[in-house]
Amino acid sequence: MVRFTIVNSDTVPEWRSGYAVDCRSTTTRFDSGLWLGGIMSIRIQKTFEALFALEEVRGLFRESLPTGFDAEEEAAFNQRIADLKAIIADLEAGTGTPKVTKIAGTLDIRSREEQYINIHPIQAAGRLTTEARKAIISYGDGYSTCDSCRKPFRLDKISKPGIAEFHEDLAKFVNMDIARVVPGARRGFQAVAGTLVGKGDSVIVSALAHYTEFLAVENAGGVVREVPLDAKNIVTAEATAQKIEEVKAESGKLPVLVMIDHFDYQFANEHEIAGIEKVVHQYDIPFLYNGAYTVGVLPVDGKKIGADFVVGSGHKSMASVAPSGVLAMTDEWAPKALRTTAMVGDLTKRKFGIKEVEMLGCTLMGGTLLSMMASFPTVKERVLHWDEQVKRSNYFIDRLLKISGSRVLSEYPRKHTLTKIDTTGSFYTVAKMHKRKGFYFSDELSSRGIVGEFAGATRTWKLNTYGLNEKQIRYLADVFCEIAEKYEIPVTP
Amino acid sequence: MVRFTIVNSDTVPEWRSGYAVDCRSTTTRFDSGLWLGGIMSIRIQKTFEALFALEEVRGLFRESLPTGFDAEEEAAFNQRIADLKAIIADLEAGTGTPKVTKIAGTLDIRSREEQYINIHPIQAAGRLTTEARKAIISYGDGYSTCDSCRKPFRLDKISKPGIAEFHEDLAKFVNMDIARVVPGARRGFQAVAGTLVGKGDSVIVSALAHYTEFLAVENAGGVVREVPLDAKNIVTAEATAQKIEEVKAESGKLPVLVMIDHFDYQFANEHEIAGIEKVVHQYDIPFLYNGAYTVGVLPVDGKKIGADFVVGSGHKSMASVAPSGVLAMTDEWAPKALRTTAMVGDLTKRKFGIKEVEMLGCTLMGGTLLSMMASFPTVKERVLHWDEQVKRSNYFIDRLLKISGSRVLSEYPRKHTLTKIDTTGSFYTVAKMHKRKGFYFSDELSSRGIVGEFAGATRTWKLNTYGLNEKQIRYLADVFCEIAEKYEIPVTP
Repeated sequence: MVRFTIVNSDTVPEWRSGYAVDCRSTTTRFDSGLWLGGIMSIRIQKTFEALFALEEVRGLFRESLPTGFDAEEEAAFNQRIADLKAIIADLEAGTGTPKVTKIAGTLDIRSREEQYINIHPIQAAGRLTTEARKAIISYGDGYSTCDSCRKPFRLDKISKPGIAEFHEDLAKFVNMDIARVVPGARRGFQAVAGTLVGKGDSVIVSALAHYTEFLAVENAGGVVREVPLDAKNIVTAEATAQKIEEVKAESGKLPVLVMIDHFDYQFANEHEIAGIEKVVHQYDIPFLYNGAYTVGVLPVDGKKIGADFVVGSGHKSMASVAPSGVLAMTDEWAPKALRTTAMVGDLTKRKFGIKEVEMLGCTLMGGTLLSMMASFPTVKERVLHWDEQVKRSNYFIDRLLKISGSRVLSEYPRKHTLTKIDTTGSFYTVAKMHKRKGFYFSDELSSRGIVGEFAGATRTWKLNTYGLNEKQIRYLADVFCEIAEKYEIPVTP
Repeated sequence: MVRFTIVNSDTVPEWRSGYAVDCRSTTTRFDSGLWLGGIMSIRIQKTFEALFALEEVRGLFRESLPTGFDAEEEAAFNQRIADLKAIIADLEAGTGTPKVTKIAGTLDIRSREEQYINIHPIQAAGRLTTEARKAIISYGDGYSTCDSCRKPFRLDKISKPGIAEFHEDLAKFVNMDIARVVPGARRGFQAVAGTLVGKGDSVIVSALAHYTEFLAVENAGGVVREVPLDAKNIVTAEATAQKIEEVKAESGKLPVLVMIDHFDYQFANEHEIAGIEKVVHQYDIPFLYNGAYTVGVLPVDGKKIGADFVVGSGHKSMASVAPSGVLAMTDEWAPKALRTTAMVGDLTKRKFGIKEVEMLGCTLMGGTLLSMMASFPTVKERVLHWDEQVKRSNYFIDRLLKISGSRVLSEYPRKHTLTKIDTTGSFYTVAKMHKRKGFYFSDELSSRGIVGEFAGATRTWKLNTYGLNEKQIRYLADVFCEIAEKYEIPVTP
């Protein structure tokens, strides 16, 4: 049944060894659906079963006394260890059948990061590092950050684990003065909008602004005003200046905030951040740098950019559990955006002086934060190798463009790993006539171990190659070529 | 070195078998610090090492092709399996020495839930269930909820995994019409305050209100007005009515919201929720039920209470990863508090119609939510056994009160597992003269496997016995008695 269970490097055909590849040699390599039942699949299954069995063992410790197991617990322990050893024997040999398929009776095991190459546009850079996975195993419990919380009782002051130090490192990482962790980039926008935006105030965003920027402004009572794109779908400094003038002329007031995505969520085009900052500050308007697609994957230097605020996303680009993110700012803005509570209980005269209003006190009190912290050494290192990721992104896109009728809608050559492509002239030509419509393409991808495309989409869609290694990026490109060949879509050698 | 490695049930002395115990028989049972080096400790250590080793194995799958390992990967796999098997041999035998002591180079392994009995006031009911721990292993990666996100692209509409169904179940669980998950109870308060509270508006809270209620009101521009406590530290309906009248008389306007904690965070006293609701609705003021200390541990019936909003905390009381929580409401309030965006891009005419403004769109897009979902079957069941938890809480407090000079500051008999106690007349009498001051008490507790007390505090402090089983609660009480005896604090038999 299993046609190619394990591909050893010595069996990799020549077309896999170099960049210049003729797809047409690969046609017989894959066979739909078969690999999923293979040895890899059962090994992955058994890895999860072993992890779960260990959590069952762990449960025994939690139910027992600190002094040790009683006889019954010892017997249960021995049984679970025996089960675990059987699972590990299967894991090693690649044998056995799935024994555990659900968590809590209803949740499927999510193994797509192990079973597949995942090109999902927003998931790629949020995949946890191995250390982050260890951290949430260890620190998953509710308020796990609070073991050693002492006066003044605020998350970013905790030194054990090193949360205070992490906050300092995080500020340095984006080269800003001060940083806070927040439940997602959106909560960073909200805090800034809540600080700066009053009823009816205008906030400049890009014509490619993420919806969370809209919502943050709306929630603060403001109105978004969009900067138009140029012919290449870039937000320019010039267009930003014009928009500011337009708002000023129409409303009689300057916008109170400009927030621009360095790379946007639609095309992941790079916008004129440096020029925009200059323009914005000529008007003395605060500038929020939206780094949801940059902080954690490429070097971001807030001071060099001249940003007043830098916002990043933990679960999108910092290999962290959702919801998580960072809001960094200059010292100038901290007294405002991080203002501490002034509220006094009218009766008790209680004050909670050190708690920051926009943060609502502590923010990420558990596994979310610890995952950020555990991924951080890797994240700091990986941004230094962004060029390799961009190179691979371009490698894949170049290969895709050899499939006749394919286009790239994002700026090209790519400066990012997220790309919007148009396969109307290639894969959609098949979908039009296929009984599965666009889903034929999803079927073909998934049967070759690729997931994360928008299921059924074969016209314009997005993918993200972030984090794929050399071998994986070649494989990905090969798969696209092979599917093209299978359906006789011309491929340029 | 190890004086009592494993206590088997057949070696448990008689004083452990019943509730009526004379502490004085236990004095020689424990010996400071020794148990930590025992067989249990190394087993726990090896459990973490095995979990981590499996995460290393998992990392290999992530780096490989979907078609399988190449020769080098296969060799690495075999090595890691060999390492794993060695760890498991140690785990089984209780042998070996710690090999892995840090995560990501800096983070200690957090094993206090395995090594100790943890009586931390806010951590007890947020400890993950075994299923939740499995869920975050499987769903820890960033946007893990988004694999099958389809139109209309909102978290609570996702059916795979069953997030949509979970939202319905969650509403039913607190008997309200509609529910959303939020990044902590505080974000629930914020959403409601953001909806209802305008500049200068008054919001009634209790004199024991949590600081996050203060911040949510302050952030919305409102002012908190506190209901005084009665002589027993209870917020009564009558006092609430008086406070409403007082606000009305002083400001000429009714308060726009009343939010009251069913059990407060200071004493965990039960306040007159039912009566308060009646009073509040006589004035036609919306009522927010703060269930941070109830939802997830005891049955909450929002409709019976008559609440307009019910807020609960995932990481405090629902065995979930932080930050997580629930905001539930009646259908009447949904169009307001869950209003969808009305913002239109002035240039692009973009609308994000289904996104809810106060939620900022999607809220918990990953492991936080999946931990809530995985714990939910257990949580639904455990609230039905709240009486047992309260009984154990009272058992412990009764035993504590036998230690001369100890007092309970919370209402007594206890109706909750969180309790504020006063040991000024007992353990503090020793602290006054001890060279370690109050830390002697922490030392004594931790050397017997108890943690979570506020380190160094021996006057008024809080503890929470939630989740302890029969055996553990007896052990806990025994430890307190034994410490008393060691320091010759009189204990009533």
